Amino acid sequence: MIQTRQLAVAQHPTGVELTIPVITVDAGVPGPSVYIQANLHGAEVQGNAVIHHLLEALSLHPPAGRITLVPLANPLGINHKNGEFTLGRFDPVTGNNWNRQYHFCGDDIADFVATEIDSDEDRIKAAFRDKLKAQLRHRLEDPWGLPVGQHLALRLQQLSLDADIVLDLHTGPVSGRHLYVPKYARERARAFNIPLNILMGSEFGGALDEATFSPWWQLSEAFAALGRQVPVWVDGFTLELGSQEQLDLTAAKRDALGILNYLQHSHQSAPWGPLWSLPQWQIEPVPLHACELVDYRAYYSPRGGQVEYLAKPEQPLAAGAPLARLWHFDRLGASESEQHDHPLSETLSLPCDAIPVLHFASASVQQGTELYKVLTNTFPL
Amino acid sequence: MIQTRQLAVAQHPTGVELTIPVITVDAGVPGPSVYIQANLHGAEVQGNAVIHHLLEALSLHPPAGRITLVPLANPLGINHKNGEFTLGRFDPVTGNNWNRQYHFCGDDIADFVATEIDSDEDRIKAAFRDKLKAQLRHRLEDPWGLPVGQHLALRLQQLSLDADIVLDLHTGPVSGRHLYVPKYARERARAFNIPLNILMGSEFGGALDEATFSPWWQLSEAFAALGRQVPVWVDGFTLELGSQEQLDLTAAKRDALGILNYLQHSHQSAPWGPLWSLPQWQIEPVPLHACELVDYRAYYSPRGGQVEYLAKPEQPLAAGAPLARLWHFDRLGASESEQHDHPLSETLSLPCDAIPVLHFASASVQQGTELYKVLTNTFPL
Amino acid sequence: MIQTRQLAVAQHPTGVELTIPVITVDAGVPGPSVYIQANLHGAEVQGNAVIHHLLEALSLHPPAGRITLVPLANPLGINHKNGEFTLGRFDPVTGNNWNRQYHFCGDDIADFVATEIDSDEDRIKAAFRDKLKAQLRHRLEDPWGLPVGQHLALRLQQLSLDADIVLDLHTGPVSGRHLYVPKYARERARAFNIPLNILMGSEFGGALDEATFSPWWQLSEAFAALGRQVPVWVDGFTLELGSQEQLDLTAAKRDALGILNYLQHSHQSAPWGPLWSLPQWQIEPVPLHACELVDYRAYYSPRGGQVEYLAKPEQPLAAGAPLARLWHFDRLGASESEQHDHPLSETLSLPCDAIPVLHFASASVQQGTELYKVLTNTFPL
Amino acid sequence: MIQTRQLAVAQHPTGVELTIPVITVDAGVPGPSVYIQANLHGAEVQGNAVIHHLLEALSLHPPAGRITLVPLANPLGINHKNGEFTLGRFDPVTGNNWNRQYHFCGDDIADFVATEIDSDEDRIKAAFRDKLKAQLRHRLEDPWGLPVGQHLALRLQQLSLDADIVLDLHTGPVSGRHLYVPKYARERARAFNIPLNILMGSEFGGALDEATFSPWWQLSEAFAALGRQVPVWVDGFTLELGSQEQLDLTAAKRDALGILNYLQHSHQSAPWGPLWSLPQWQIEPVPLHACELVDYRAYYSPRGGQVEYLAKPEQPLAAGAPLARLWHFDRLGASESEQHDHPLSETLSLPCDAIPVLHFASASVQQGTELYKVLTNTFPL
Repeated sequence: MIQTRQLAVAQHPTGVELTIPVITVDAGVPGPSVYIQANLHGAEVQGNAVIHHLLEALSLHPPAGRITLVPLANPLGINHKNGEFTLGRFDPVTGNNWNRQYHFCGDDIADFVATEIDSDEDRIKAAFRDKLKAQLRHRLEDPWGLPVGQHLALRLQQLSLDADIVLDLHTGPVSGRHLYVPKYARERARAFNIPLNILMGSEFGGALDEATFSPWWQLSEAFAALGRQVPVWVDGFTLELGSQEQLDLTAAKRDALGILNYLQHSHQSAPWGPLWSLPQWQIEPVPLHACELVDYRAYYSPRGGQVEYLAKPEQPLAAGAPLARLWHFDRLGASESEQHDHPLSETLSLPCDAIPVLHFASASVQQGTELYKVLTNTFPL
Repeated sequence: MIQTRQLAVAQHPTGVELTIPVITVDAGVPGPSVYIQANLHGAEVQGNAVIHHLLEALSLHPPAGRITLVPLANPLGINHKNGEFTLGRFDPVTGNNWNRQYHFCGDDIADFVATEIDSDEDRIKAAFRDKLKAQLRHRLEDPWGLPVGQHLALRLQQLSLDADIVLDLHTGPVSGRHLYVPKYARERARAFNIPLNILMGSEFGGALDEATFSPWWQLSEAFAALGRQVPVWVDGFTLELGSQEQLDLTAAKRDALGILNYLQHSHQSAPWGPLWSLPQWQIEPVPLHACELVDYRAYYSPRGGQVEYLAKPEQPLAAGAPLARLWHFDRLGASESEQHDHPLSETLSLPCDAIPVLHFASASVQQGTELYKVLTNTFPL
Repeated sequence: MIQTRQLAVAQHPTGVELTIPVITVDAGVPGPSVYIQANLHGAEVQGNAVIHHLLEALSLHPPAGRITLVPLANPLGINHKNGEFTLGRFDPVTGNNWNRQYHFCGDDIADFVATEIDSDEDRIKAAFRDKLKAQLRHRLEDPWGLPVGQHLALRLQQLSLDADIVLDLHTGPVSGRHLYVPKYARERARAFNIPLNILMGSEFGGALDEATFSPWWQLSEAFAALGRQVPVWVDGFTLELGSQEQLDLTAAKRDALGILNYLQHSHQSAPWGPLWSLPQWQIEPVPLHACELVDYRAYYSPRGGQVEYLAKPEQPLAAGAPLARLWHFDRLGASESEQHDHPLSETLSLPCDAIPVLHFASASVQQGTELYKVLTNTFPL
Repeated sequence: MIQTRQLAVAQHPTGVELTIPVITVDAGVPGPSVYIQANLHGAEVQGNAVIHHLLEALSLHPPAGRITLVPLANPLGINHKNGEFTLGRFDPVTGNNWNRQYHFCGDDIADFVATEIDSDEDRIKAAFRDKLKAQLRHRLEDPWGLPVGQHLALRLQQLSLDADIVLDLHTGPVSGRHLYVPKYARERARAFNIPLNILMGSEFGGALDEATFSPWWQLSEAFAALGRQVPVWVDGFTLELGSQEQLDLTAAKRDALGILNYLQHSHQSAPWGPLWSLPQWQIEPVPLHACELVDYRAYYSPRGGQVEYLAKPEQPLAAGAPLARLWHFDRLGASESEQHDHPLSETLSLPCDAIPVLHFASASVQQGTELYKVLTNTFPL
């Protein structure tokens, strides 16, 4: 039922091939197809522990359908350090974010829909999936080659193309749990039980969740433009499960339960069937806050200095309330009059109410460092 | 006539303000306004030497108009090393390319043109420049702050907004001299006497040359859409003056002469007047090759290994001719039969004729490393 | 009473001079001389907050003697990041640890002692201090120049040479509070009230505490070898105040109280007079553990993987008890027989009883990563 | 005759084992044992090409004895980049130079010699080699583990312990060819035909050449102290074959010929027999300069700025002659009076005659950057 193979995704100058484990859980019972990966950003290790718990649960409660699990999805990012920490968000050679290199070009969706406007849904789904696969294959076979990060991303994306559900497990720097939710899936997203939620539109920006839902969502929109309603046939989510560089097996169990809960219940509002006929997984519901993507704001440090982070992730903060204290220790020993103009420390705050999602991981910041990211104009999910 | 001031562009955690020198040459004679900066990418030092030669020439031959010169434009990038080399293309904290963070939003150009459709050219120019300035000022005053790289970029961009001509001096890694040419300025671009040329359209992608010409070009296009012809009132060019990490004062003198030649002659096909009434600068014309941006191709290494770079920048290469030899020294000592399937070295080549522009700077490459960039489908500029 | 000046310690390629604030507190009352610096390792920011609290206390309770305070001692290290974190332990160009570049050569101490064997103590002290100053000045004036890190270190060391007491404020990665104690000062070291203590000998290894006490201790030893007892006339300590990248003002107040307590009480067993005649500072004594330097051991990861750090700093751990769990997520989905030989996780432990002092800051580790440092063969300080 | 195996030297967090190829050439004819490795510093690739040529020559002209060849000796260093270049001289986590982590402790040599003072030479050699092997094995089996770099170094050192001759192939940054020569082997070192030579003493500093010759040299010295003359039974050399990041197969052939010439001729002055009875390899002798290690000097930049490197490696330079020009482009546009005190550029020179060996690889330098290394007080080798 559980099978594992190794997929080559990169090769070092010394000839070492870097591979990732691709685990499939398939009990032979027809059902939805699910793809879950973790640790694409090198420092964001928590998802591996979540996959461990998922695999344990799936062994005990074999699901219908087929689940593909990919831990340690980016060996290039995971294995690269400068100093003690993992420099994991971008390719250290080019600066390209590892999670902005997936591929989708929707230029010919209108043509496709014109051709298939009267086809039945099964045919549309199959033909569109074939089209997406051909698009990827074409990129992968480019005689000019592919950049490091895109080669990796496309290998992963190929694994995900058959899935009805794609979950990409990330973390923030110092971060509360949060979820990127495509708006059409807002209702079933509640089952994840993740406190902070950001609502996304159908645009493609290069990330895996978008590479999953944008094509199918844009397909649905194109049919709608011609007057035919078809659902968005896949779900794609990015889950941000706490802070980077930390492995917390206890929290990972809670994270896994939320995912199992979503997998069990999502079918009620989604176009695929159930994975289990189990009683409900035991989760403790938390309040679910949400905002639009455009209201998910970053606050940048107005000056350089050293920071006490005062506001805690997940805890609402009023406009003007203390967010962080920025210390200018270069002014220690300055005279009173100098300190009047250039105080030793300043308390930073936001111009509107917000719920902090994450903050920067280091106490030392430049002018322009992204200090906090926050939800604003929030509402219940 | 020559005045210099310091502009603060960044602040470190220890409170150090990083400033850049802003030099203006203004002999008080009305004429065009020119902005020239160098070393925005930290390792690309050659432009500073070019500015040195320009300043010497301008002192001897004071131009009409006003020339602003900014060497060492990015102290954050220039001063940051890991190992001996300068990690200068992107912000080491975020991975953001320093030259993709300029600002322009053209959403309301159509409205602007509708309003000004019957205005005279002077009024249009002044009103549009004001609009661009207001756009920048608005970003710089954002109460949420700005990211490090955008703060730097916008401070520089503010300096450039009054200019008729903006030149951004860069280099490649190991590179021939090449020039990014907005198509409308193709004719006068020849005066630079740079052998390899890439023709650009009016889209904005975040670089300074685009931030210069895209607004004015899109303005011209929007007028044309309503049936009125106005020129593109500014020129913006990125000059790539050889290889990074190298200071070659002799070559810099040739580079400076090309720029002076352009400044003197560009007015003949451009909407601004002459900077000099001197006899022509002494340049030795070279053959000028060009291709469309879409034909400026990168070749990525098909495997990891160590590389002998065989093809030289600026020297045409036939399809199938040796580009580079990729060595797999991990196969040293392998048996003959193993080497049959996995040879010790392989000769790489391109699928079409090309003129190499630049190659990677290190002998050790991963699968997917950008080995070469080349012009294809070339024609005379 | 409080005066501040800027000392230039480095210069960037763009010409920026990096300076550090040098604060002196001198109420004009004769007394000992004290030198305290913080943040020589770039990520170790906590000491700056401690200096802030010290400065507040010294303003309220002016000491006898003269106290020099240097926050932000290493702008090169503090301002250098790759990714979010500060790469602060070593020069990113050369790999040289910033705190191993102080200077001392004791080759001619025997000659000095032979000459001064009958001198009175004041003369010996003054002559030896002059000698140390001349040695430093000679290095700083070398016509061949000095490496980046040594230039910085020697500028700082010059500030410290007049002091009777030198305190260098550091932190560990994820760390309990600990103190490096020269053995001769063991008794008075208790006043710092730091729970974990490492006893040092008189050898010089390049750090500031050693650069402080080694010369004077070796001087004392050389006199002893000729039969004359003189005390070690200075104290030098490295204080490790918790974890890097964190600014905790509340903890910094406790840290500052320990230092003030030491400053007040050290004179009872030291050759200098009191700084205050105040009642005792309010500290809550903690148990003080110690071991010899040779028993301060590092434990290196036996394999690569991802780590749950189980043992907490400052909490004693028995031989064989769980130290950390090392996860091999590349083995997820492996068969039972494969997992028998290569289990998914392994629990690491130590071969003897220990008190963990610090652990690595990242969950991802290579084979050979320094996972923990621990005290072994401990005894009360 | 040629056999290759893979030796595991490191393991990444994702579980990847990094291995190096170990190639042995053994025609079954008794003779000396030789160990040659390349690319321990990650950017120093040229030695791999040299090993390629050596292997070709050895296949055509099978030597007596046994030759072990190890290309790509440090996969951790070779595969690690920040930006385009290879950050290869030190462990990016700890800053430890990869070539300072070999192991040797000579504390008990005196005891060994006392015991073996009357033994015959074969017995002494065998017993001492066993002792060195036991010392290494003991380190490798330490239950506390080993740091990353020492684990790698000791695995390599184990391969080298049986050899009579150990050659470690490196390069400099931008560098002429140079050789580190243990003084006792000065005569036979000429056979390498390397123009610049640095004479070493018997101290151990952690590098592989020292780890090779220091034990046997100190053994010889200890016997001499008791009045018995025994030769130094092994040779260890570090060859610096030009500049980093460059693969030059033509130059590598010349480099290989020098090594073959040394291997053929060294036996005439060394305690091992010939590897070949061939006619002499075809080399073109060059003048051989040498100096003592203490006279191999570094020159550090007196200020920050951008550099034109004027002096070429291998070309003698008189005291006071131009070494480099240091540009301060931040002073561009300064007034004449400002430039009087702070000129735009300054010409740097050395206080004595010298032969430049290498210079820094980047044009941008800080105050204290190691600009050049040079031989001084030179004499013919």
